[in-house]
Amino acid sequence: MKNTAEKIAKSMKEISVAEFFEKNRHLLGFDNPSKALLMVVKEAVDNSLDACEEARILPEIIIKVKKLEENRFRVVIEDNGPGIVKEKVPSVFGKLLFGSKFHLGRQSRGQQGIGISAAVLYAQLTTGKPAIITSRTSPKEPAYVCHLKIDILKNEPVIIKEEEKEKFREHGVRIELEIEGKYTRRHQSIDEYLRETAIINPHAHIIYYTPEGNKIEFKRVVNHLPPLPKTIKPHPHGVEFGIFERMLKITSSRTIASFLTTDFSRIGRDTAVKICRKAGVKPEAKPRELTHKEIEKLYRVIQETKFIAPPLNCLSPLGEEEFEKGVQQVVNPEFAVAVSRPATVYRGNPFKVEACIAWGGEISKEGPAQILRFANRVPLLYQASACAITKSVQQVNWPNYHISREGNMPTGPIVIAVHIASVWIPYTSESKEAIASYPEIIKEIKLALQECGRKLAAYLRKKRKLQEKELRRKLFERYIPEVAHSLSVLTGEKEKEIFKSLEILANKNVMKEEKGEKT
Amino acid sequence: MKNTAEKIAKSMKEISVAEFFEKNRHLLGFDNPSKALLMVVKEAVDNSLDACEEARILPEIIIKVKKLEENRFRVVIEDNGPGIVKEKVPSVFGKLLFGSKFHLGRQSRGQQGIGISAAVLYAQLTTGKPAIITSRTSPKEPAYVCHLKIDILKNEPVIIKEEEKEKFREHGVRIELEIEGKYTRRHQSIDEYLRETAIINPHAHIIYYTPEGNKIEFKRVVNHLPPLPKTIKPHPHGVEFGIFERMLKITSSRTIASFLTTDFSRIGRDTAVKICRKAGVKPEAKPRELTHKEIEKLYRVIQETKFIAPPLNCLSPLGEEEFEKGVQQVVNPEFAVAVSRPATVYRGNPFKVEACIAWGGEISKEGPAQILRFANRVPLLYQASACAITKSVQQVNWPNYHISREGNMPTGPIVIAVHIASVWIPYTSESKEAIASYPEIIKEIKLALQECGRKLAAYLRKKRKLQEKELRRKLFERYIPEVAHSLSVLTGEKEKEIFKSLEILANKNVMKEEKGEKT
Repeated sequence: MKNTAEKIAKSMKEISVAEFFEKNRHLLGFDNPSKALLMVVKEAVDNSLDACEEARILPEIIIKVKKLEENRFRVVIEDNGPGIVKEKVPSVFGKLLFGSKFHLGRQSRGQQGIGISAAVLYAQLTTGKPAIITSRTSPKEPAYVCHLKIDILKNEPVIIKEEEKEKFREHGVRIELEIEGKYTRRHQSIDEYLRETAIINPHAHIIYYTPEGNKIEFKRVVNHLPPLPKTIKPHPHGVEFGIFERMLKITSSRTIASFLTTDFSRIGRDTAVKICRKAGVKPEAKPRELTHKEIEKLYRVIQETKFIAPPLNCLSPLGEEEFEKGVQQVVNPEFAVAVSRPATVYRGNPFKVEACIAWGGEISKEGPAQILRFANRVPLLYQASACAITKSVQQVNWPNYHISREGNMPTGPIVIAVHIASVWIPYTSESKEAIASYPEIIKEIKLALQECGRKLAAYLRKKRKLQEKELRRKLFERYIPEVAHSLSVLTGEKEKEIFKSLEILANKNVMKEEKGEKT
Repeated sequence: MKNTAEKIAKSMKEISVAEFFEKNRHLLGFDNPSKALLMVVKEAVDNSLDACEEARILPEIIIKVKKLEENRFRVVIEDNGPGIVKEKVPSVFGKLLFGSKFHLGRQSRGQQGIGISAAVLYAQLTTGKPAIITSRTSPKEPAYVCHLKIDILKNEPVIIKEEEKEKFREHGVRIELEIEGKYTRRHQSIDEYLRETAIINPHAHIIYYTPEGNKIEFKRVVNHLPPLPKTIKPHPHGVEFGIFERMLKITSSRTIASFLTTDFSRIGRDTAVKICRKAGVKPEAKPRELTHKEIEKLYRVIQETKFIAPPLNCLSPLGEEEFEKGVQQVVNPEFAVAVSRPATVYRGNPFKVEACIAWGGEISKEGPAQILRFANRVPLLYQASACAITKSVQQVNWPNYHISREGNMPTGPIVIAVHIASVWIPYTSESKEAIASYPEIIKEIKLALQECGRKLAAYLRKKRKLQEKELRRKLFERYIPEVAHSLSVLTGEKEKEIFKSLEILANKNVMKEEKGEKT
């Protein structure tokens, strides 16, 4: 047996995370050529929007997709963000699991520092071409240009060429990739992704040059940035035992009591001391000196203690007015209404649901309602049926709101858009395509949709009543000449005068009815 | 802008793959307490079976699950495999993406060196307890015992305690973990997983001590090991550009021609030279000295060249007889038939489909057919509806084979088991729960099921005919005494003699009919 064990031991080795994702790139959404093309654009645009918001810049993003040959494209994405400092450019684009947002404790589009380097990896895998990154952080310094690839076996960037360049916008980042892909204009396309991105980011200006040579532009319709979310400390109920134990080891607090109050949100000094007492741990004990048993006891007492919900300013919701404007610009409906629910909590993570329903206008009257799903201001285009948003839409009783239904899906000229903002969106997979169906989340989405539904129903009822009145008025008006003539003959008054009085009467009646309705 | 860019740069850092999977453990199947308990058992058992087969040992695996308190369990898995050499124990169990099977180029249960260290990570996260590993590679040396945890921020093992131990089986590995979990006995349980593991590994002896204190045993029914699959080199059509480029860089071949013939399967010397000529590359050029353009040309010529399919001895199928025995032991049907399809290829990856249909006996007569899905001898318990096996079952026209159907699912007393063996199973996610629906795979599964279906149908037809004949014979037999009596009165022959002759006649007729059917 020893021989076999030694033989196996010899073949053992460490695999780099880049190699792992190269082989498992479907986990990141790069499963087929048309999806891969979309993913490259998506990862770059998401990063650009995050960077602009962080730097408080109203984003302007230019996307160019050029067909080089059958199934081969050059993709360029350029933003007016703060730029990336020269020293970090290689790692940001050429190293998986490198980024600034993993431990951030606040809402952002990107989370783990995988997306954009996965796009670089995909380009390298399919065409062997390096990514070309241009970055400038200040008009006083030249732009930095870097051609880079990834050393897959080490998960490290390899700089092929670097240079300086004067001719570039004052600040921002530009990425150029050559990839194998397939271009489609149907749903789950770049076109659809950018259309929905414009809806959920009405403060962004997006310019898209398509492979066919067309220019599609989504203008900015909201002239202020969304609030910059605050970074929050973890809530005591949102931390698992292993992480709690690690926090004790790496904390800079000198005592357990100060560890509890400074490393967590929502634990006050008095509570901290009470927790320590109950757990039989001295409040002034050193965090690194606790035994495993003591840590266990402390953790259990914390889980049994009640705390107020975590602070909610770590979220950056869209806002009702902004959501309506975004939808109106892109969808052009007759009516749109948005509802922003109060923030709430699942498993110690704050989240907030916003919904917007648009009706009529340019929305197609045929077929099922269009459902637009958004998470932290990013459109979700895949795995609709696995998503908590779709499931919530199916659970709403639409006929209650004058919306017809086929099977369990609403139909007719409506667009239903739902946005979930959270520090930690529970996606069902790493490719971030669908939101897991936590009961708390489903409940909030349904409440938002029902509130929108009630407002839409009120609009539709009023619209119908006005139409009925208008019909009655028109009917009355049609007989005015005849009545005026008869009355004139009977009374001897001038026909014209009678006509005018009757007309005034008709309009008055309609207005009275309208007023009556308002009370 | 420079300030923001610098501020962001300061918060950038690398995340360890352990930390990534700690936060994203649902990607590895640890999404909830009951699934987590199953995953821990599964990862350990899969590793044990792989190790035993590699060492050509008939596996004997003991699983003990003990409830310590509500939602807390101690799980112990022990095997009679070759053991792991002392020096590698910490990395195998305490480092993610460390293993021996990633580049193997042949069928195995585990692939990426994540599973068992993820189980250790999960134990640490939920209870903070170290894993206790015991390993022995030879009866001449003591066993090595190691208590270990994972340094999550570095993805490195941390040895808490190590010792030697004389009292342990001659060779093998034992792992003990304490985890939070939830025990269930319904489907998607440890019980179901081990039951199906026994079906697809009829050469294994599995002993399971349940949390309720019961002993469940699956005895070995096949006394030989499956063939040890051969390691194969990549097929020229199964390699992407980026990987081809990397192979050129790390090859030990000195010329392009020898690189092509030795680093790939199915490229002969003549073909290699022809490919070089066509690509305008000298066959004796050094691999590391090719320009990007030359590599590109070479790659394209290879893609346009035809090669024979990759060698298929990298697979370790179950075999028809073995599959039937496995199913018979566990399911106890009246009839079982298995079909092993010839190996074939998707995207340069060889694969082989085997199916077994069992009917009657102890199989429940009510409800839909039970569908058992297997990949590389591992049962798949989750995401049935997303799996190519389920989809294939739904596409078969079951009534053709005397199996009734409800919706698109077969019903009645049948069990349908499908096994896919491949060097690289295209799972839909890292938790390995469902097989992606490649058309080549669906086609093969359907062919296997149809062949099983035809054999089952023939059995059912014959069974029905025999039943009908038996009925007729019985009917005839019932009248023999009366007829014998009447004939005796009429002819004066002894009633007993006539009775005997008639009986012989009845049996002869049935036998004749049976013979006639066989022609």
